[in-house]
Amino acid sequence: MLPDPIKTFIQIFSTLPGIGIRQATRLAFKLINSGRNRIEETAKAISDLKYLKICSECFFVYDADSRRLNADKRGINLCNICLDQNRQKDIIAIIEKETDLISLERTKKFKGHYLILGEFAKTGFLESSQKLRLNHLKNRIKKEFGQAEEIIIAFNPTTYGDLNFSVIAKELSPFAKKITRLGRGIPTGGEIEFADEETLTSALERRN
Amino acid sequence: MLPDPIKTFIQIFSTLPGIGIRQATRLAFKLINSGRNRIEETAKAISDLKYLKICSECFFVYDADSRRLNADKRGINLCNICLDQNRQKDIIAIIEKETDLISLERTKKFKGHYLILGEFAKTGFLESSQKLRLNHLKNRIKKEFGQAEEIIIAFNPTTYGDLNFSVIAKELSPFAKKITRLGRGIPTGGEIEFADEETLTSALERRN
Repeated sequence: MLPDPIKTFIQIFSTLPGIGIRQATRLAFKLINSGRNRIEETAKAISDLKYLKICSECFFVYDADSRRLNADKRGINLCNICLDQNRQKDIIAIIEKETDLISLERTKKFKGHYLILGEFAKTGFLESSQKLRLNHLKNRIKKEFGQAEEIIIAFNPTTYGDLNFSVIAKELSPFAKKITRLGRGIPTGGEIEFADEETLTSALERRN
Repeated sequence: MLPDPIKTFIQIFSTLPGIGIRQATRLAFKLINSGRNRIEETAKAISDLKYLKICSECFFVYDADSRRLNADKRGINLCNICLDQNRQKDIIAIIEKETDLISLERTKKFKGHYLILGEFAKTGFLESSQKLRLNHLKNRIKKEFGQAEEIIIAFNPTTYGDLNFSVIAKELSPFAKKITRLGRGIPTGGEIEFADEETLTSALERRN
C-alpha cells in the first residue's frame, strides 16, 4: 500500500539507532508534509556529512573542507583537538563514543587527548577494529614519549564497561604511569533514595 | 567544537518528531562512521520523498512517478485508495494521521474512503487547513451523493480526540445518515487490572 520511496525510507531509517519502523514511518510522512524545500534541505544535511573525516589519532571527526586552506603536512589527518598545541599529549582518555568526548569536553576540565574506541559489541569482547585502535595508541605512546603520564579509561559504569576496563587496563599498564577511571557516586541532583546499592556503596567508599 | 555539517544536521534533525538534540547527535556520528556510500544512500532516501504527491481527496500520499504511464485525466491527483473502484465512496473514515490510515488498512476490514485531517494542534482547536479539508469533504459529499451512508470519526480516544469528535460530528451531521466512532474497551491482550476507569466503564457499557 505504501509507495516505494516511503518503503525505502522506512527500511533505511529503521536501522538507525533509536528509530524503529513506527517512528521511521512517522518521520517519512512528517517530511513529505513539510514540502519539497524542507525535504531537500534535510537530504543535504545528511549528504554534507560526507565531507567529514575521521582523525587518524583519536578517531573523532573533523571538517576536511574547512581545513584545506591552512593544511600542513603534519596536521592534515588530525582533528582540532589533536592539533591543539595547548593540550597535553601524554594524558589520554579512552572513551567509547564521540558523544562521550563531547560530554567530557563540555566540562572544560580535561585538557588531554582522546582515543575513541567505538561502541562495545553486545558480546562483551573487543572487536578487531577496537583492538587496532588500541594498538595504534600503544605505538603512538611508544614512539612519542615512551610512557603516558596517565590513561583515563572513561567507560560507562556498566557490566560491559567494567569488564572492558579490566581487559584494557591490563593491556595498557606498560604504557602508562597511571591508569584511572571516572569516579563513581551519587550524580549531582540525584536522590539517595533512588540510588542503587552499587552506586551507594561507591559513594560511601569514596566519601570525602 | 563540532564541525558545521554536524551542527546543521543536529539543528535540522532535532526538530523532527521524537528526535531530540541528543539522538540527532548520535545519528550524525552513526552515519559518519557508516561511510560515504551509506550517507549518500540515506540522503537519497530522503530526497526521493519529493516525488510523492498528496491525494486531492483524502490527503494520503501517492507515487506521482509511477502513475505517469497510466494517468487518466480524472485520476491524476488521486491516491490508490481513492482510485480503487471496489471501495465504497459514501463511507468515509475521518482520521488524524497517515499512520492511522495505515493501521486501519492493516485490519482489511474497512473498504470505504478516508479523509486525513492532519495532527491536532495542542490548543484543542481545529486549524484552518483542517477546516479547509472538512469543507472539501462536505462539498464532495454534496456533489457526489448528497449524503454519505456513514462517516466514521476515528480519532484517538483522548481528551483532544473526544473534543474534536464532538465539534466535527455536529458540523457534519447534515452530510451523513450516520456518524460513528470507534468502539472503546479493553484492547486485545490488555489486562483488566491495568485498565483505567474510563476504559473499563466503556468496556462494561459496550459488553456483548
